[in-house]
Amino acid sequence: MGSLRNRITGIALAGAVALGSAGTGSAAMETAKKKEDRKVKNVIMMVMDGTSSTATTLARWYKGEPLALDKIVTGGVRTYSAESAITDSAPAGTAMATGHKSNSSYVGVLPSVVNSPGAEPISEKDHFRPLANVLEGAKQTGRATGIIATSEIQHATPASYSAHHLDRNNFEVLGEQQVYQNIDVVLGGGKESLQPGTKEKSRKDNEDLVNVIKDKKYDFVETKDELVRSKSKKIWGAFSQRDLAYDMDRNRTHPEQPTLAEMTKKSIQTLSKDKDGFFLFVEGSKPDWAAHQNDPIGIISDVLAFDHAVKEALKFAEKDKNTMVIAVSDHGNSGISIGNSNTTKGYDSTPVSAYIDPLKKAKMTLEGATGKLKDDLSNIEEAAQLYGLDNLTASEKEQLKGAKDKKAAASVFVKLLANRANLGFTTGGHTGEDVFLYSYGPQKPQGLLENTDIAKTMAKAMGFNLDRLTNDIFSEARQAFKKAGARVTVDKKDPANPVVIAERKNVKAEMPVNKNIIRIKGKEYELNSVIVESDGSFYVPKEAVRLFQKKAR
Amino acid sequence: MGSLRNRITGIALAGAVALGSAGTGSAAMETAKKKEDRKVKNVIMMVMDGTSSTATTLARWYKGEPLALDKIVTGGVRTYSAESAITDSAPAGTAMATGHKSNSSYVGVLPSVVNSPGAEPISEKDHFRPLANVLEGAKQTGRATGIIATSEIQHATPASYSAHHLDRNNFEVLGEQQVYQNIDVVLGGGKESLQPGTKEKSRKDNEDLVNVIKDKKYDFVETKDELVRSKSKKIWGAFSQRDLAYDMDRNRTHPEQPTLAEMTKKSIQTLSKDKDGFFLFVEGSKPDWAAHQNDPIGIISDVLAFDHAVKEALKFAEKDKNTMVIAVSDHGNSGISIGNSNTTKGYDSTPVSAYIDPLKKAKMTLEGATGKLKDDLSNIEEAAQLYGLDNLTASEKEQLKGAKDKKAAASVFVKLLANRANLGFTTGGHTGEDVFLYSYGPQKPQGLLENTDIAKTMAKAMGFNLDRLTNDIFSEARQAFKKAGARVTVDKKDPANPVVIAERKNVKAEMPVNKNIIRIKGKEYELNSVIVESDGSFYVPKEAVRLFQKKAR
Repeated sequence: MGSLRNRITGIALAGAVALGSAGTGSAAMETAKKKEDRKVKNVIMMVMDGTSSTATTLARWYKGEPLALDKIVTGGVRTYSAESAITDSAPAGTAMATGHKSNSSYVGVLPSVVNSPGAEPISEKDHFRPLANVLEGAKQTGRATGIIATSEIQHATPASYSAHHLDRNNFEVLGEQQVYQNIDVVLGGGKESLQPGTKEKSRKDNEDLVNVIKDKKYDFVETKDELVRSKSKKIWGAFSQRDLAYDMDRNRTHPEQPTLAEMTKKSIQTLSKDKDGFFLFVEGSKPDWAAHQNDPIGIISDVLAFDHAVKEALKFAEKDKNTMVIAVSDHGNSGISIGNSNTTKGYDSTPVSAYIDPLKKAKMTLEGATGKLKDDLSNIEEAAQLYGLDNLTASEKEQLKGAKDKKAAASVFVKLLANRANLGFTTGGHTGEDVFLYSYGPQKPQGLLENTDIAKTMAKAMGFNLDRLTNDIFSEARQAFKKAGARVTVDKKDPANPVVIAERKNVKAEMPVNKNIIRIKGKEYELNSVIVESDGSFYVPKEAVRLFQKKAR
Repeated sequence: MGSLRNRITGIALAGAVALGSAGTGSAAMETAKKKEDRKVKNVIMMVMDGTSSTATTLARWYKGEPLALDKIVTGGVRTYSAESAITDSAPAGTAMATGHKSNSSYVGVLPSVVNSPGAEPISEKDHFRPLANVLEGAKQTGRATGIIATSEIQHATPASYSAHHLDRNNFEVLGEQQVYQNIDVVLGGGKESLQPGTKEKSRKDNEDLVNVIKDKKYDFVETKDELVRSKSKKIWGAFSQRDLAYDMDRNRTHPEQPTLAEMTKKSIQTLSKDKDGFFLFVEGSKPDWAAHQNDPIGIISDVLAFDHAVKEALKFAEKDKNTMVIAVSDHGNSGISIGNSNTTKGYDSTPVSAYIDPLKKAKMTLEGATGKLKDDLSNIEEAAQLYGLDNLTASEKEQLKGAKDKKAAASVFVKLLANRANLGFTTGGHTGEDVFLYSYGPQKPQGLLENTDIAKTMAKAMGFNLDRLTNDIFSEARQAFKKAGARVTVDKKDPANPVVIAERKNVKAEMPVNKNIIRIKGKEYELNSVIVESDGSFYVPKEAVRLFQKKAR
């Protein structure tokens, strides 16, 4: 939704882009107008993290009927990063949010290593530079915005659409930027990283962001019921200290949490009230986690949960007719295959049931079932049964007995289930194959794309240019303020809360890092973007300089 | 090209289909005419057998630039058979040629076992019934036709587009039907199955089909040079006793053989002279064979060779503008993944070169390299080097030494290379994931399809209905001739060459099985389709009955 100021900035920006490509004069104006007409109002971008083709195929067999995704298959996506054939989720998210490939763990910043053949080269001065993302572009064009994930909301992929930092594990930084991004709806896990405390992911900077969120007039909700009841235009849902439960486990372990489809539906209801349109990012985060564990139950559970969310998005888009929906996996994971060494002979006459029936016996995912394990593993056979491993053979019992701790037990569980269900796995890591592209609505992308094309397509559809926006909101602070005759220093007295200082004569402006705030002469102004630190350099929006010049007179 | 008679039949048939869907009366005629206008002139159907998404991704990295296929990614294909989650190539080919899913090893006939959820059920009376394929439909509409494969031309996938039999391994039957199908261009391997002899695949029915081919005015060619020089409208190329060499091995082992791209180009040149259009089927057969062996070199070799053929097809289609090109894999194979247990940690920073450089060292495929092995394996390290395994470590040498025969040596070769190239495999069999769909041109299929939709799309584009054609050319002989008052027997005096006999009063018609011939009163007539035996029943085209009634007066 954004302030009126933001809306005006947005429209001006969109106009500039249209003019930029159409030339000048009245004919150009008409062209620009036509382009304007063709703009897409809403964009819903959905990522099922780490989901290979086999995962969707398996989920469909498990479900026993077509997926919502099946109706919108339109092409494929190349997923490699700037430095590797197999991407990490951070550079994958960055590519799909900003239009630039990046490096492992880099969220929303340019790479420092480029060695993938065909990848855009990078000059040293641009290493680590923050990049505008499509959510930031959507905001600038007056649209309402939202992000949803079933992981911590600070996790790499949702963070790529809402924050900028070299280290995906720095939830403090990523989480703080998200709070100061003026996003209208934020739903997911990760409450732990919003508050000070003694837990692993608690904030060390002593800021209580839950209070900030409430000050910012968000309806702060922590359960599905609170979410559903909310009538606010701004909702922040933190439904778990860390990640949300797998869809299949929720009823047993966290019945208070909403499903991904419920979060998606509520977000669309809330954001679609903005007459300027909206951008919504939705991640089914945990098919990836399950794949890392080689757990087909977790994969199926959360691919189907994701698919239900896609169904919600399509239901809205079909009715609205001016909404683009994109769904995609950011990369393969686990090398999962339907068929393994059991089926090297006989695959051609092995019925679907030979793969699905053993999976259907599971009542919980690996996380759910091993979560029930006692520390001494004395109930390992009960936990195995929860995971579908009933009627254990002597050999299977032997293997379970061999497990010395929970981690080893989990390894045995997945090995036994894969064998029963005739599934193959090649790795505990990601994989490098092209993945399917799913899209719907006006100007939808089609064909084989680079993951970076996804961001570019969305930006074009919404009427802005990402690189131009990057120039607008991420200027290196010293250079930017030099034009205003001001000197920049960074106050690191509180190392966890550095502040960029711009000074000219007696006027001093303070810009706390990871926030969208500038204080001049004791007055605080909201900026249209957050202050970002990247590899020791600090980046400010040009608006900060303009404001400084205006107020410093 | 087909005879004038065929052309007339074809046009009538196409008209009937158009009318059938448009109703009656003059408005319907106009609709029919419009539909006629929209008909696609040429169709090129291309299959890269057993090629998973990973295989094309890997081939692209190996090549170092985009594939021709990359330009025409349009969706996905579900590949399961009527009885299994993972398909055999015969039912996959049958699905994509006839529009019906079938069973393992069934070529161009209906299944007898249907248990896949969602698959079309089958009544017992239809078990094993032959099914018209798109090549037969193309012939009936006056189009020229061609089939190409790098395997024996009698192999399951090309056979699915040109023959009908329960057993894909019966090259005698499949090969004979192909010879009597009036196909204009036939290029591939499999000469052994065209002639009597003592080899494994030699004909036991004592028929020399090479002579028949020559009698039928084909230019019978056996080398690339002969192929390129041929000016005939009918060409039969048998470039090998069995399969053709892998693309990468050809120069060293069989330089006289043409490439798949050369065969494709020549076929298009030849067939496109027909003013009624053409249907061409092209198979890159051996990515599948390499995948069964877990040989990434063979996969890459023949995926790239296939891609060159796609380039030729697209070059023609782009110019022609009235040609539909479809390319697809019939199923996954081997569970190949970019990434394996080596990369469970570190995948996110492992460069493309870590996968590709070890592969680039190979000078030959597994088939090529192990083909150089002496029986006593005394040159195993030299052969390994041909396969790219240079600078062997002590452990690698040890593993090679452990190989007791050529087969074991091959297993060690692929294991070592996969480890060096960080590739994973899960099986020596096919796999069950959805595969990419590639298509180009008017009325091209898009989205997620059943493999059966591919056949239906092609038939619709060419203006005929496959099920109607099945009724026309595959009537059970006894029932069909009953209407003509004739009694049917089968003469099995020569068990390898059975003959269907229809008799009424003193008139007798003889129809040798697997041929398109009917002999009445000592005179021989060519039929528009072949006589087929399936599970003990015999099938004849309705044309045979009409001809019998006419000539038996």
